[in-house]
Amino acid sequence: MTQPIVAPGLEGIIAGSTRLSRVNGLAGELIIAGYPLEAIAANATFEETAYLLWNDRLPNAAELAELQASLASLRALPRATLDLLRAVAAEKVAPMDALRMAAGTLSLGGIEGAENEAAALVARFPTVVAAYWRLLNRSEPVEPDPALGHAANYLYMLNGQIPSPAQARGVETYLNTVVDHGFNASTFTARVIISTASDLVSAITGAVGALKGPLHGGAPGPALDMVFEIGSADRAEGYLRAKLERGERLMGFGHRVYKVRDPRAAVLSAAAEKMFQADGDRQLYDLARAVEEQAVALLAEYKPGRNLQTNVEFYTALLLHGLGLETALFTPTFAIGRVAGWTAHCLEQKAEGRLIRPGSDYHGGLGRLWVAVDERGN
Amino acid sequence: MTQPIVAPGLEGIIAGSTRLSRVNGLAGELIIAGYPLEAIAANATFEETAYLLWNDRLPNAAELAELQASLASLRALPRATLDLLRAVAAEKVAPMDALRMAAGTLSLGGIEGAENEAAALVARFPTVVAAYWRLLNRSEPVEPDPALGHAANYLYMLNGQIPSPAQARGVETYLNTVVDHGFNASTFTARVIISTASDLVSAITGAVGALKGPLHGGAPGPALDMVFEIGSADRAEGYLRAKLERGERLMGFGHRVYKVRDPRAAVLSAAAEKMFQADGDRQLYDLARAVEEQAVALLAEYKPGRNLQTNVEFYTALLLHGLGLETALFTPTFAIGRVAGWTAHCLEQKAEGRLIRPGSDYHGGLGRLWVAVDERGN
Repeated sequence: MTQPIVAPGLEGIIAGSTRLSRVNGLAGELIIAGYPLEAIAANATFEETAYLLWNDRLPNAAELAELQASLASLRALPRATLDLLRAVAAEKVAPMDALRMAAGTLSLGGIEGAENEAAALVARFPTVVAAYWRLLNRSEPVEPDPALGHAANYLYMLNGQIPSPAQARGVETYLNTVVDHGFNASTFTARVIISTASDLVSAITGAVGALKGPLHGGAPGPALDMVFEIGSADRAEGYLRAKLERGERLMGFGHRVYKVRDPRAAVLSAAAEKMFQADGDRQLYDLARAVEEQAVALLAEYKPGRNLQTNVEFYTALLLHGLGLETALFTPTFAIGRVAGWTAHCLEQKAEGRLIRPGSDYHGGLGRLWVAVDERGN
Repeated sequence: MTQPIVAPGLEGIIAGSTRLSRVNGLAGELIIAGYPLEAIAANATFEETAYLLWNDRLPNAAELAELQASLASLRALPRATLDLLRAVAAEKVAPMDALRMAAGTLSLGGIEGAENEAAALVARFPTVVAAYWRLLNRSEPVEPDPALGHAANYLYMLNGQIPSPAQARGVETYLNTVVDHGFNASTFTARVIISTASDLVSAITGAVGALKGPLHGGAPGPALDMVFEIGSADRAEGYLRAKLERGERLMGFGHRVYKVRDPRAAVLSAAAEKMFQADGDRQLYDLARAVEEQAVALLAEYKPGRNLQTNVEFYTALLLHGLGLETALFTPTFAIGRVAGWTAHCLEQKAEGRLIRPGSDYHGGLGRLWVAVDERGN
């Protein structure tokens, strides 16, 4: 055995190999199962993307129809899951906590075997989020509509109205865009759990818990708040300069890995433009673009050499807001996309069959002696 | 940035530093927050052990009384948790799945802040396991008794009878013995989740999911089955030789880390001996000892140089069986002990404030071109 390597936070450690995605931060490239993100995001249905991740190739027409039917048939929630959501809505639990609680129950109703678990988790996440959102807002859940695709049905269950083709495409492009991203903390969590030969529901429940954390990087709300506060393009420079002079961070810019524009930002910007255009009101989109340009220019001026570029959160917020989603739904909607990636990572890790188990250093006390409780001082 | 290090499974990687426990596999030593396991296991109440892990010192009498009262006051389950357990008992869900589902809901009832979450999780795990076990066996849960200590109250809630002092001490020694063990896969899961600045309930729910996995190493049932099959000491050699000749593994022997007798095996063997002695029937204990001696001798003969020694599972099974617990309760009971360690690791990792996020290699396709669904072949 060689000398152990000390790597707190596992920075610089390659914990495994995957065929699911490659993140090249210096080039600003994201590959999803062999395809550039740009080829998948606006072209694929979400069902096609899930099939691609699970099978390493796109489905033909018959395979796609079969997957659509299978996922649609799995959308309804187990009775106990829905009862739990009702109970916790009364306590006004946050949507991500409700999703974690519900996720843990999605093995109910006789879902067995890794592939069936993967399908049920992907199929049911939108139902959980939409049902809980409605319960939280004192309305009844809307039954899933098997005639609608996965993405369109999510908006339908949220709003009770069939979305326009532009809206359905908008949310579908978003879900594709965030479907996978290397060994981020939630994906890594899922892989550690499944590496013990546990089940997918356990692994994905853990991943939801990790995604909740603010350091995971799924908090697109503040970026949009800034755009609203700025209000018009001519105020952008003054507002942003004042913020930077105060030493404040600009939300929606900068990324741990990407040192050029996050490829997901470009894809989502294009998707948002199409959607706002179709809805006949480009105003907010044009304002956001103006804010982005100004922010990137000022960041280069105030933080030279840092390469702070637009990240995925900036256009996520714009796109999801344009779809009528409130901020509290942004991270749960992210989870609806990412769960397909999580399940694919679980299947991959499971096939590998190797336990993920690092070592630890000990810096605590040594040689302490037991003293009975009555003889202990303060 | 230096060259990344490729370490699948994270073998040989020190993922962080802890003051909670040190596992020295070559020397057969386990240190729990500065104390040799042997000093804690049979001496401490479980409340003292939890206090030690959370505060890095043992409590004085007043502090201990306060913690006992606080944990006792937190034992009752939130209404929604109990309703969920009732619903899933009807589906005969396995106890570890029920524990995962319930764990995710333990933030209910206004539990906020990391320390309160830690206390509620530790206080409520026995209530979840005992209530679910009774529901699964068609009887009503037994309300926790605040006059009983943590360990004794667990047996009381399981059986509806106040345990003898020897039984209470037996389960308490077991819970202390398994309370912490370095960065095992479930503890590491909890640390990855909390490293995103998520909450303890999310982290511990993930840890339960990891503990479920057979590769985690918490399956003491088969070791005891073997002892029963052997039945009497004079049959041990023939039985074990036949098993080894067939190339089968002896359950309860060998450990990834320990190359001498697992220190937990020694502690649990002594605890089991005391308990069987107090109950007036040493027969099963003496048989188990005879099987152990014969197994270790034969493993040295059949697998020379492998150092296959008795592990924690062998005497776990004997002790928990002696306490009247069925095999399906072994891993959930392990979780009741380990949850104190998990929460302490979460508090430690949280204070560190560093995201755990490894990298990954990509071995998938490259440069694939989008083809419309109708143009895809089979």
